Amino acid sequence: MESLNRLRIVMINTSDSGNIGAAARAMKTMGVSDLCLVAPKEYPTAKATARATGAADLLHRATVVDTLEQAIGDCQLVFGTSARMRTIPWPLMTPREAAQVVMNEPQGADIAIVFGREDAGLTNEELRRCHYHISIPGNEAYSVLNIAAAVQVICYEMRMNALASKESEQEGAAAPMMPLEFREWDEPLVTSEDMERFMKHFEETLLDIGFYDPNNPKQLITRARRLFMRTRMDRLEMNLMRGVLSTVQKRVKKEP
Amino acid sequence: MESLNRLRIVMINTSDSGNIGAAARAMKTMGVSDLCLVAPKEYPTAKATARATGAADLLHRATVVDTLEQAIGDCQLVFGTSARMRTIPWPLMTPREAAQVVMNEPQGADIAIVFGREDAGLTNEELRRCHYHISIPGNEAYSVLNIAAAVQVICYEMRMNALASKESEQEGAAAPMMPLEFREWDEPLVTSEDMERFMKHFEETLLDIGFYDPNNPKQLITRARRLFMRTRMDRLEMNLMRGVLSTVQKRVKKEP
Repeated sequence: MESLNRLRIVMINTSDSGNIGAAARAMKTMGVSDLCLVAPKEYPTAKATARATGAADLLHRATVVDTLEQAIGDCQLVFGTSARMRTIPWPLMTPREAAQVVMNEPQGADIAIVFGREDAGLTNEELRRCHYHISIPGNEAYSVLNIAAAVQVICYEMRMNALASKESEQEGAAAPMMPLEFREWDEPLVTSEDMERFMKHFEETLLDIGFYDPNNPKQLITRARRLFMRTRMDRLEMNLMRGVLSTVQKRVKKEP
Repeated sequence: MESLNRLRIVMINTSDSGNIGAAARAMKTMGVSDLCLVAPKEYPTAKATARATGAADLLHRATVVDTLEQAIGDCQLVFGTSARMRTIPWPLMTPREAAQVVMNEPQGADIAIVFGREDAGLTNEELRRCHYHISIPGNEAYSVLNIAAAVQVICYEMRMNALASKESEQEGAAAPMMPLEFREWDEPLVTSEDMERFMKHFEETLLDIGFYDPNNPKQLITRARRLFMRTRMDRLEMNLMRGVLSTVQKRVKKEP
């Protein structure tokens, strides 16, 4: 996905190298691979590599520079991430809106997304170097995401947008599809406990009628479970079905 | 936002208590507050509290239980998170689709989202306890998100959806009833004719076992029909169910 290849994640003055490793992992899971570190406090470290797990390759290819200018100098579009509103409001968008902007960029444009310090974020001066600001809409009472978690959310939105545009390119899939819809309902739905009791009752009844050999279950019970789980049964329906099962059991047990 | 208050995050057998703290922080930033830990390997720890930072309160209110059953028993809807496709595909959705499902749940429904072990995820048995599976669409080459990062992404989607519906309420629009998209399935779906034959067979069987008085049908058949229609049964499922009905009929008719 071309739009993901154009993205560079820039981390400024990161204090905890564990966060650098975790950010590398977050990027790789979403198919983003260009990481640039501006004057990290500690790097490289064993801690960073440990937190990167399967993204150690991405971490080792990361570039380390001294200034923000060096990190973003060749980019046509720069986003800054910010939890706070600044005195002079800048064009501010959600990660989802930012992903749409990225998708609409001309091919070949290089795009940076800049993340600030764990404790203090980006300075006003750094934020003014950015075209747009991205803010993750958080809980008013506590909105400070861990920096690697913020990298994960933003890269996730970039990927979701890239996938959507890829999907719209190739329509007409052949695999069978399961449509599921949700509507207003007249009865309360059963709980997970209710459902377990029902499935147990269903299994017992199959045993009672001799339909089901517990030593050779194949996928039978799993398939039945998938069917009934999918229905999101309501209480009346469950009573009805259990009534049927109990009646079957009674009739079968009366046999000689 | 009412839909966020209904959410419970369930973490099973978490090895690294740092991930528990980070998950608590991820939840709090998105306004989700109910955390349930199933048999954590180490907890509570100073490490968990450190990684929780401003979400230590949420961490201290977390419940610790021994089994998944205790964690989800009172929930009407259970999602399991899974990076892998299983042998029998279960209704699988993205976090965004799952957020739409949550928004469309009836008021008062309790909803659990279950996260597996850092190394091995959820077992097949645990996955079968869930109505739907959520998979974050990751990089084919490396799709394993850190567990707290996955909690962040999913809670973020839940929050984004709640915010969108809050906005639309303020505009005076009714909450959208968003039909979910078609998803891949392993078996072709039955036709309307097949379904009619099945319902006829179901009715006959109820008569055979004496469960159902045709002169006083009440809404029984209609309710059963709604249940089965809603499942959009596939052919294998229908063969299975018709096999059960035929076996019941044979057993009951052998009676004197």
